[in-house]
Amino acid sequence: MNAHTAYTVLDLIGTFAFAISGAVAARQRRLDLFGIVVVSFMVACGGGIIRDLCIGAVPPAGLANWAYLAVTLLATGLTIAAYPQVRRLRHPVLLFDAIGLGLFAVAGAQKALAYSQSAEPAILLGIVSAVGGGVMRDVLLSRVPAILEREIYASAALLGAAVQVGLTYAGWSTFWTPWVAVISCVALRLAALYFGWRLPVFHAARSAQPQTVQRGDAAKADSRHDAR
Amino acid sequence: MNAHTAYTVLDLIGTFAFAISGAVAARQRRLDLFGIVVVSFMVACGGGIIRDLCIGAVPPAGLANWAYLAVTLLATGLTIAAYPQVRRLRHPVLLFDAIGLGLFAVAGAQKALAYSQSAEPAILLGIVSAVGGGVMRDVLLSRVPAILEREIYASAALLGAAVQVGLTYAGWSTFWTPWVAVISCVALRLAALYFGWRLPVFHAARSAQPQTVQRGDAAKADSRHDAR
Amino acid sequence: MNAHTAYTVLDLIGTFAFAISGAVAARQRRLDLFGIVVVSFMVACGGGIIRDLCIGAVPPAGLANWAYLAVTLLATGLTIAAYPQVRRLRHPVLLFDAIGLGLFAVAGAQKALAYSQSAEPAILLGIVSAVGGGVMRDVLLSRVPAILEREIYASAALLGAAVQVGLTYAGWSTFWTPWVAVISCVALRLAALYFGWRLPVFHAARSAQPQTVQRGDAAKADSRHDAR
Repeated sequence: MNAHTAYTVLDLIGTFAFAISGAVAARQRRLDLFGIVVVSFMVACGGGIIRDLCIGAVPPAGLANWAYLAVTLLATGLTIAAYPQVRRLRHPVLLFDAIGLGLFAVAGAQKALAYSQSAEPAILLGIVSAVGGGVMRDVLLSRVPAILEREIYASAALLGAAVQVGLTYAGWSTFWTPWVAVISCVALRLAALYFGWRLPVFHAARSAQPQTVQRGDAAKADSRHDAR
Repeated sequence: MNAHTAYTVLDLIGTFAFAISGAVAARQRRLDLFGIVVVSFMVACGGGIIRDLCIGAVPPAGLANWAYLAVTLLATGLTIAAYPQVRRLRHPVLLFDAIGLGLFAVAGAQKALAYSQSAEPAILLGIVSAVGGGVMRDVLLSRVPAILEREIYASAALLGAAVQVGLTYAGWSTFWTPWVAVISCVALRLAALYFGWRLPVFHAARSAQPQTVQRGDAAKADSRHDAR
Repeated sequence: MNAHTAYTVLDLIGTFAFAISGAVAARQRRLDLFGIVVVSFMVACGGGIIRDLCIGAVPPAGLANWAYLAVTLLATGLTIAAYPQVRRLRHPVLLFDAIGLGLFAVAGAQKALAYSQSAEPAILLGIVSAVGGGVMRDVLLSRVPAILEREIYASAALLGAAVQVGLTYAGWSTFWTPWVAVISCVALRLAALYFGWRLPVFHAARSAQPQTVQRGDAAKADSRHDAR
């Protein structure tokens, strides 16, 4: 399996995962049939389209290759037909989002490397393509983007992209390289969700009793806000 | 009238319609003079710029061709000067939005075909350029994007782009082809608004009394939310 | 100092200013360490990336040149380490935002001219690159974009870009040209903030007692909204 085929396969599986994540989120918002398809497609292909524009691969694969649209339609159809089953999963949106995150981070980094970029833009474009679709979905559905919440999200994409680029640069590139990278990203994301891991948050870290004070402030601010 | 001239004319008329739609929405939000111009321009040219980036037509026509800026300024000036008249129209934003939707769907599909794309990306880019400006306007003005609401919106853009591409592929391309495509899109959108047509919404379609149950859940969720 | 070096230096200083603005805003929202870095990077490089995509300079400098990432990390680290000092400034976000606005408006216009564009797209791309990062930050953090608020914002970017392009076209291009353009933009923005200058807002300018009537309408609309 050469590099080109490998990243196309990764990209399509990631597209499927993100499309399900988008379809579930869109259906929960009670969008109509076409709205669900459009949101799924934007979520699934948005990150990849931004990546392709940035490396000059126009027209972007998500638009030029009919397979992406077909995979999106398949995922959307499955989500609508088997919604009770999909919904019974504990946190389906989060699960499929994590899988898509890992696949897109690795496939994005791999494609950027294949376009003979150096290591740093490859890692950045891996993060961009992994995070772009999710941010688009959240902005469109008027939610606070998951990337801004406290669980490790973009950091997991960084891990996946960095493992992929690092292993490739170290000359350890085998058939299993991308899967190792994907699994490390997905595992970190799911573990962060399960155990509630988060990166340090800097609220008034320099003062004596910072958190208490700030929480008081926040409560005051909130009550002021409510009083308005 | 050759293909190039035709899509430029369609594009400029669509720009005018979307610019009026953007200017009315921006003025209703009481933005200042320059803010109205900027929002109008982003609304009017945003979709086309995304399309041009995706087909590699850089710099995008909306930036390189002064006619787009001139048309936007003209539409904004007219909207400001004749606001009482524009406002007297029943739903001016919706009307001009529908016209711009049809023109951009057809012009976008036509331009993508002219860049020798195949049928599927041409239809997708027609939808993208038609829907892109409206989504940008709604995200910027912090409204729920019209594309996510229940009336037929992106489906109408799909109809217009598909009619245009289908007639062209069938060899029935005449002077009237784009206008037939535009009118079918605008008519579908306006009819959907007038009659309240909508695509199926899948709220818990599989269970016995789905809507009641889900509404109860939603109400409980809302009251929990309010109690916070 | 040739044109290329000049706009890179301007761009990097603007990146630093916007990265601090983004880091302060992200920290105020209590994002985690990586979230702060990501938001800072998107804010600092988002406008420039859009500009580079529009002039066909792929991969965009913000991704290809490691200096932009390094400057962003430096600015983010400084903001986190010296947060109490940064915060003591009266309106740090607004101040650094104004400086970044001026630098990006001028550097964007200059780079577009260097890619042998004509005057109009150069000015437009100056505004786009200056305004793009701030709009991205505000949309991501779910705030009403500063561009839509009433103080002069995009108009200041227009002034900076127009002064830069105008002086260059007039043949008065010297070492000091970009700094004159930057200072005129920043001065206009800060003066507008300090004195509360704003462009005309057109609320029902044609009727006899427009504001009272409209405010009444708005109050009624608000109370209806609250009653729901």
